[in-house]
Amino acid sequence: MADWRDYLEERQASFVEDLKDFLRIPSISADPAHLPDVDRAAAWVAARLQAAGLADVEVLRAGRYPMVYGDWLGAPGQPTVLIYGHFDVQPVDPVEAWTDPPFSPTIRDGRIYARGASDDKGNMLAPILALEALLKTHGRLPVNVKVLFEGQEEILSPDLPDFVALHRTRLACDMAISADGWQWSATEADLRVGLRGICALEVVAQGPATDLHAGLYGGAVANPVHALVALLASIHDASGRVTIPGFYDDVRAPSDDERRRLAAIPFDEARYRRAIGVSALAGEVGFTTRERIGIRPTFEINGITGGYTGPGVKTIIPSSARAAVTCRLVPDQAPETVALAVKRHLESQRLNGIEITVNILPNAASPYLIPMDHPANRAARDVLVTLYGREPYYTRSGGSIPILDLFRRELDAYTVIYGFGLPDENFHAPDEFLRLDNFRRGQEAYALLLEQIRLRWNRLIPSKPVNLLVDFCSRAFSSEVDIGSREENA
Amino acid sequence: MADWRDYLEERQASFVEDLKDFLRIPSISADPAHLPDVDRAAAWVAARLQAAGLADVEVLRAGRYPMVYGDWLGAPGQPTVLIYGHFDVQPVDPVEAWTDPPFSPTIRDGRIYARGASDDKGNMLAPILALEALLKTHGRLPVNVKVLFEGQEEILSPDLPDFVALHRTRLACDMAISADGWQWSATEADLRVGLRGICALEVVAQGPATDLHAGLYGGAVANPVHALVALLASIHDASGRVTIPGFYDDVRAPSDDERRRLAAIPFDEARYRRAIGVSALAGEVGFTTRERIGIRPTFEINGITGGYTGPGVKTIIPSSARAAVTCRLVPDQAPETVALAVKRHLESQRLNGIEITVNILPNAASPYLIPMDHPANRAARDVLVTLYGREPYYTRSGGSIPILDLFRRELDAYTVIYGFGLPDENFHAPDEFLRLDNFRRGQEAYALLLEQIRLRWNRLIPSKPVNLLVDFCSRAFSSEVDIGSREENA
Repeated sequence: MADWRDYLEERQASFVEDLKDFLRIPSISADPAHLPDVDRAAAWVAARLQAAGLADVEVLRAGRYPMVYGDWLGAPGQPTVLIYGHFDVQPVDPVEAWTDPPFSPTIRDGRIYARGASDDKGNMLAPILALEALLKTHGRLPVNVKVLFEGQEEILSPDLPDFVALHRTRLACDMAISADGWQWSATEADLRVGLRGICALEVVAQGPATDLHAGLYGGAVANPVHALVALLASIHDASGRVTIPGFYDDVRAPSDDERRRLAAIPFDEARYRRAIGVSALAGEVGFTTRERIGIRPTFEINGITGGYTGPGVKTIIPSSARAAVTCRLVPDQAPETVALAVKRHLESQRLNGIEITVNILPNAASPYLIPMDHPANRAARDVLVTLYGREPYYTRSGGSIPILDLFRRELDAYTVIYGFGLPDENFHAPDEFLRLDNFRRGQEAYALLLEQIRLRWNRLIPSKPVNLLVDFCSRAFSSEVDIGSREENA
Repeated sequence: MADWRDYLEERQASFVEDLKDFLRIPSISADPAHLPDVDRAAAWVAARLQAAGLADVEVLRAGRYPMVYGDWLGAPGQPTVLIYGHFDVQPVDPVEAWTDPPFSPTIRDGRIYARGASDDKGNMLAPILALEALLKTHGRLPVNVKVLFEGQEEILSPDLPDFVALHRTRLACDMAISADGWQWSATEADLRVGLRGICALEVVAQGPATDLHAGLYGGAVANPVHALVALLASIHDASGRVTIPGFYDDVRAPSDDERRRLAAIPFDEARYRRAIGVSALAGEVGFTTRERIGIRPTFEINGITGGYTGPGVKTIIPSSARAAVTCRLVPDQAPETVALAVKRHLESQRLNGIEITVNILPNAASPYLIPMDHPANRAARDVLVTLYGREPYYTRSGGSIPILDLFRRELDAYTVIYGFGLPDENFHAPDEFLRLDNFRRGQEAYALLLEQIRLRWNRLIPSKPVNLLVDFCSRAFSSEVDIGSREENA
């Protein structure tokens, strides 16, 4: 039996040509004119999966967009792993800022430049090639594998909830692995062990039926902007804590181990401040910056508006004012519970002549946290130690990824994010690139991970590890720079 | 010598025809297509002034708009009174809501319906007819009179400051009377004895250099909306008082007489609340609604904006937030002093990672207050008692009128507002009208006022009453309903 390592080694030049072909397809999901290209990319992926040796390969529909499904289920008694990624890409504007045309892949200094190179075509092609290497050399995979690649990730996957719900039987799995992610640096690995949840609300303060003349009425009629700012200002106390009754009730206290692991992650505060453009950081007293983002919930005003906001002066008492708020949540807070606590607290305020209404918005996700000894987490850790020669950083992201909640809710499966690009690769920006040695590393990492999952799984009592929370890390948004990242995005 | 009363009596039918002619000119200053009509109205006024017997009648220019000046200066040793009004009118939209076409004056039930009937053509024609009656019967006026009628009042008189500064010698006077105003009701007169001043500021809270992802940074980076709402919420204490140091330093305590006079004005709180559409009133503890508006200063947020204010959710920490603020001022507060106190207070706050900048805007006016014994106030009061058979209400308006500050600053003259329409006459709305008996009453009132000013003036030591503050009342904006008004505007 040939070794899958040799197979990968021998075929790298051909795999890079495959990647170039894939990158030539301008599968921009945000542009309706490129919908046929998104379909072409789906067809390319389906063909590549068949060539790799997967069975049951099929292009399905989610709204107007294609989804590619495939599986290999020849390992009875072994777990089923769902591998996820996306073949749609971001728009290319400003196209004049690119060194080479975005859909003419170019290799310079060991990097391949093209839109989608890192996010996510290179990263999602790696596991396909790993599957091929295993199938072509061993004739089988260590575990059962399903793959699901989507064509609407860059437009926030509007059709994915319905799609996953509709296909929950076909997609049934024990765990999911997302190929959409990145590592800490070329020499350091990153295993995200936590991710915050989110709930969203709109707060409306209603005053007089119409805007009033601020001269003729000012001083005698309550101004809804005043009421709203007073209400919002009262949400935080002097120590930065949220004052809403019950807000922290379900917050799990971090263990000493967790705090130690967070403290071990490199953090250059001056560099961080410079990148953000602020003179000082601020937050809840008693917690480090990384803890404030990783393990503490927030009440954040994302926007506020009321009255006249144009140039010059318009002397009105506004009729109403509105704030958009999101709360980031940590284990074991539930979005519905926190949203209701916020709504009850704000609506219960007695204000003369002002009515407060809080609308809970549908945007919500639960927080995630993986136990350190979860087999998928241990398997990923083992492979990263092998590949990087050192323990990965165990980071916690402050962001939220709805797809994690979706897979968990619909498939009862948790997702490990496992991508091998680096955070400086210009996702969503001109001159996006992927380092070819990480493209290669990703292929090996996926083969190793599947083998390691089998090993770890079979050491457990052969039952599904229900109620174990699994790790996720944030998607590579150009605007989403995790503080764990050693380099900022462009 | 014929009596001017007989003259007015005999010519009412002809005067109403004059008013109709005047009202047929669609002198809408806001519409460039009607600029020639504004010029036609100016020519009509100039001709009418000449027919009335004034000398030195001239059409001058203020920017693209005409101004009509005229005078009669044949009373040496007597004071000089400047009479002010405007011959431009509001637009007529929605024109389909008018019972008759807006520039086809129609008389029904003793009311003349047309755009500008009350605001301000009928009210400004009345003093011209009074001057004519006095000149044609007595051959002279009791005092020296200058008239200044403008054609850009409805677009907020952008060219008036430069015009008045340029013509300060020609416009020199001892006092001004504005024919743009109204009375309390058909049977009750209104003498406004105070008017608030104003200063305007913009407050900017600057946080991170760009909007940040609220998941990845939330909790560790100060949010400028949070900073702004905390700052603005701290401006009022629990009793509704402004907490800015020095804010009340120059506020003159009202006398018991003043408070008594304000308390004597009819006020139906339930009706007032209903008109505004609020369930309760609110304001500074220890003051009535009328006092809160008339004799107390305010800090009012006219608008606030920051971050994402569109539909749905965008999870950002906004880069900055902004509030538009105006303060209404009472004697003896100076706009510059208060604006500086606000700026210093807000900019002195220490906020981690947030920079507060306060920009003082040019929009400013000083507060006004007339001493009860000022001769012009006494003269107006005497005439109103004669005409209405009872003492007028002494009201204080919460609004501000820049022209009062302009006449005071440039001409060292104070203005009495003295119009005879009623506040229900649909200024700025469809079916504007003027009651013809008030048109008639205005003519008589102006003749009596000039006689009474001469009497009152000559009882004083014959020197100009410097440093006496004179009363003003608010212009008839459809959106500016003074709480003193018995009836709301349409």
